[in-house]
Amino acid sequence: MDRTTLARWLESPRVTNAIIAIIILNAITLGLETSQAAMSFAGGLIIAVDRVCLGIFTVEIILKLIAYRGSFVRNGWNVFDFVIVAIALVPSQGGLSVLRALRILRVLRVVSVAPSLRRVVEGFVTALPGMGSVFLLMALIFYIGAVIATKLFSSSFPDWFGDLGRSAYSLFQIMTLESWSMGIVRPVMEVYPYAWLFFVPFIMVTTFAVVNLLVGLIVNSMQDAHAQESNAATDSYRDEVIKRLDQIEAKLRDK
Amino acid sequence: MDRTTLARWLESPRVTNAIIAIIILNAITLGLETSQAAMSFAGGLIIAVDRVCLGIFTVEIILKLIAYRGSFVRNGWNVFDFVIVAIALVPSQGGLSVLRALRILRVLRVVSVAPSLRRVVEGFVTALPGMGSVFLLMALIFYIGAVIATKLFSSSFPDWFGDLGRSAYSLFQIMTLESWSMGIVRPVMEVYPYAWLFFVPFIMVTTFAVVNLLVGLIVNSMQDAHAQESNAATDSYRDEVIKRLDQIEAKLRDK
Amino acid sequence: MDRTTLARWLESPRVTNAIIAIIILNAITLGLETSQAAMSFAGGLIIAVDRVCLGIFTVEIILKLIAYRGSFVRNGWNVFDFVIVAIALVPSQGGLSVLRALRILRVLRVVSVAPSLRRVVEGFVTALPGMGSVFLLMALIFYIGAVIATKLFSSSFPDWFGDLGRSAYSLFQIMTLESWSMGIVRPVMEVYPYAWLFFVPFIMVTTFAVVNLLVGLIVNSMQDAHAQESNAATDSYRDEVIKRLDQIEAKLRDK
Amino acid sequence: MDRTTLARWLESPRVTNAIIAIIILNAITLGLETSQAAMSFAGGLIIAVDRVCLGIFTVEIILKLIAYRGSFVRNGWNVFDFVIVAIALVPSQGGLSVLRALRILRVLRVVSVAPSLRRVVEGFVTALPGMGSVFLLMALIFYIGAVIATKLFSSSFPDWFGDLGRSAYSLFQIMTLESWSMGIVRPVMEVYPYAWLFFVPFIMVTTFAVVNLLVGLIVNSMQDAHAQESNAATDSYRDEVIKRLDQIEAKLRDK
Repeated sequence: MDRTTLARWLESPRVTNAIIAIIILNAITLGLETSQAAMSFAGGLIIAVDRVCLGIFTVEIILKLIAYRGSFVRNGWNVFDFVIVAIALVPSQGGLSVLRALRILRVLRVVSVAPSLRRVVEGFVTALPGMGSVFLLMALIFYIGAVIATKLFSSSFPDWFGDLGRSAYSLFQIMTLESWSMGIVRPVMEVYPYAWLFFVPFIMVTTFAVVNLLVGLIVNSMQDAHAQESNAATDSYRDEVIKRLDQIEAKLRDK
Repeated sequence: MDRTTLARWLESPRVTNAIIAIIILNAITLGLETSQAAMSFAGGLIIAVDRVCLGIFTVEIILKLIAYRGSFVRNGWNVFDFVIVAIALVPSQGGLSVLRALRILRVLRVVSVAPSLRRVVEGFVTALPGMGSVFLLMALIFYIGAVIATKLFSSSFPDWFGDLGRSAYSLFQIMTLESWSMGIVRPVMEVYPYAWLFFVPFIMVTTFAVVNLLVGLIVNSMQDAHAQESNAATDSYRDEVIKRLDQIEAKLRDK
Repeated sequence: MDRTTLARWLESPRVTNAIIAIIILNAITLGLETSQAAMSFAGGLIIAVDRVCLGIFTVEIILKLIAYRGSFVRNGWNVFDFVIVAIALVPSQGGLSVLRALRILRVLRVVSVAPSLRRVVEGFVTALPGMGSVFLLMALIFYIGAVIATKLFSSSFPDWFGDLGRSAYSLFQIMTLESWSMGIVRPVMEVYPYAWLFFVPFIMVTTFAVVNLLVGLIVNSMQDAHAQESNAATDSYRDEVIKRLDQIEAKLRDK
Repeated sequence: MDRTTLARWLESPRVTNAIIAIIILNAITLGLETSQAAMSFAGGLIIAVDRVCLGIFTVEIILKLIAYRGSFVRNGWNVFDFVIVAIALVPSQGGLSVLRALRILRVLRVVSVAPSLRRVVEGFVTALPGMGSVFLLMALIFYIGAVIATKLFSSSFPDWFGDLGRSAYSLFQIMTLESWSMGIVRPVMEVYPYAWLFFVPFIMVTTFAVVNLLVGLIVNSMQDAHAQESNAATDSYRDEVIKRLDQIEAKLRDK
């Protein structure tokens, strides 16, 4: 079988639907693995099904590698599938229980196979670059905030602001407004009464930046939607008017 | 009385206004039932009024069934009314206090009768399918998150992450940002210091997905509104211009 | 002095600016009244200034009543001013410390005098009727939720769900997502394990309704803004094109 | 070297890129200063690098002052850079540990140098004046709320509402919805059962004002975006149509 036939077969609805079915079956068995009752009742079967599913995914990836060779990596979704299957193949005996837990990420493969989910994720991803500058600015604000908080409060509140990492985590919590006052700022203000001069502006600036992100997203999607919609209708009308005017001028010239 | 006359009578303003009045009366008596003072003072009357109201609703539904027969189920609001009245008719003696509490849902019938409320709910419902893919993706993220959280944290935190259900509930709480850090993640981090590597990205991804839902909703309603508004004005102008150009061409041809 | 001259004098920039200055002065003295240090230092002066300010406001309202007579009540802002001054004139000796506290509402008069603030508030108020149906629906959801919560949970949690008022307050807290899970729903679930079946849908429905309110507001303001902006430009162009086409047709007819 | 050559050299990509590199290097050393391990290992080097960076920034500012003289202050970013470097030059021996902490603000200079970040911040700043009236109204609501809360609750809850400052901080916390009910309003309601009559409307009004700010921002950015986009396309088409109609009329006149 040559490579293009193999590629066409791999992309055929019959194969992709079968893969989706296997992913859903695997999602169920991976969910059942978390239940002790299910595992004591049919643990062997569940693990066997899981291994068979992983085997099928591995074969599929290998066939795709054969079919596309060099152009395999050009499609981001292929790389995504490859990484997910590779994670599942890493041996997890040696205490790496995290890797065992990450095997469920395999279910994300359904995103790369189902076109409607794929479009949503692609929409998310294409929205990211337009927000790059705002993200950079947020990272800057967080870094500056973490350094200031660590310098000022690390001696009295080592749990919250002991080092840059702890401070960044606490500032993220404060940005989400979770227990920022009763949990963090009021206790800090008992030691440093002017601490609100740092935290209240921090909340305002980060909230305002998040709002700007949101506004930017809305305006962008709106423009895209508007451009697509209006152009189709308007352009044909414009062409019609210009054509008519051309004809009238032509007739006037002829006389 | 034949069926169309019955249907027209049931839809007449006099009957629908009477039904709205009865629903409001019933809402008041159902509210009074929660007050011990009111029940000890006029409990018998309140229960009697409630029964009469339910009787009227039952008769109304039966008359609608007679009037519309097969086409009754085609209108979603009829099915809605039928289910609500049916819930109220189920006997609730046998300890099913939940069913007694659900009788208040009867008040929702006002939505199916009052056109302005009906339009709002229909607006909600028609917005749902456009968000189907994002909801599916959210369900996927929640399922994956619940499996990972259960596998990693169930042994140390059985109350929060003991099984898939508890994990899903805790992740929903975390998505709403309620006590996510002080209540859940900081205690978890005392046992698993790297737990934030799971929870912080989870918060970012789900928040971003919710924001995208919101943006999608806004863009959709805007386009609908824009399309309706602009087309009426623009189309008549366009038709006018094209008609005029036709006439000019016709005149030029005639000469 | 006749009535129109009086009205014109009351609306003149000199008088309104003086009133704004007096309001700001009064706002400062009312703020100083909360400080024990300021009151022990210059309490007599502060209270005297407050009384003089109130006197001026009373005179201004009486002059307006004379100037506008019957049409006084037609302007909502006049009624607003009248109520605020009236609250301040009610004697507050008899333990009604709340009325004393409400005297600060007098500062709100600056909104009725400063045009830019007035426009913002008018923008808020004109946005309200368009949201009437959604507010009605929210009230309905709250009423139904309060009745269900009272019936189900009042016996075990009288502080939170003891009667309709307490339930409505607790549901409002839950809608704002404040401590909904750790503070309310988890404790409730220890007694009624399926309580989340009521609270999680309640959160989703009310949040979705709030989001719809927001979307409606955005779409409305956008349409207003769009209509104003585009019409000015487009209409003149349209009129121009139609006029030209008329002229061309006229010339063709003449030949 | 004359002044314009100096100015052009200071704005050249080579110099600005070098400055960005030095800012990033300085950001890293300022971050390392918070780590005791790094300071005990290479404290002398870190402080030396920090001093050299500060020296370079000082020289740069002095060169800019020489190059632009009077027009230096006209560019807000120059003033911004000047203030930041001046803060770092203030001696901080005398217990002013806050000034030491603020030296990290130097990293914000990257915003004034990198054009993409500069544009984001300029976008933030230009959005502010349009929100002036709403901000003024919010300040008014906060002032009135703080006076009322202080008058009513200061005797029983001095920690939260003891004076205007504490009340304003507590109301800011309540506006962000953080622990507003379980942390503040429920305890207050144990003493003053009708306290919710103040707090619930306060939450509704401030939340609604914030939502209006957001809506205003979205509508403004949308109009800007829309105006730029549509005009380019539409204007050229309009000019084309008008030009053609002119020509046709001219020809008809000539005959």
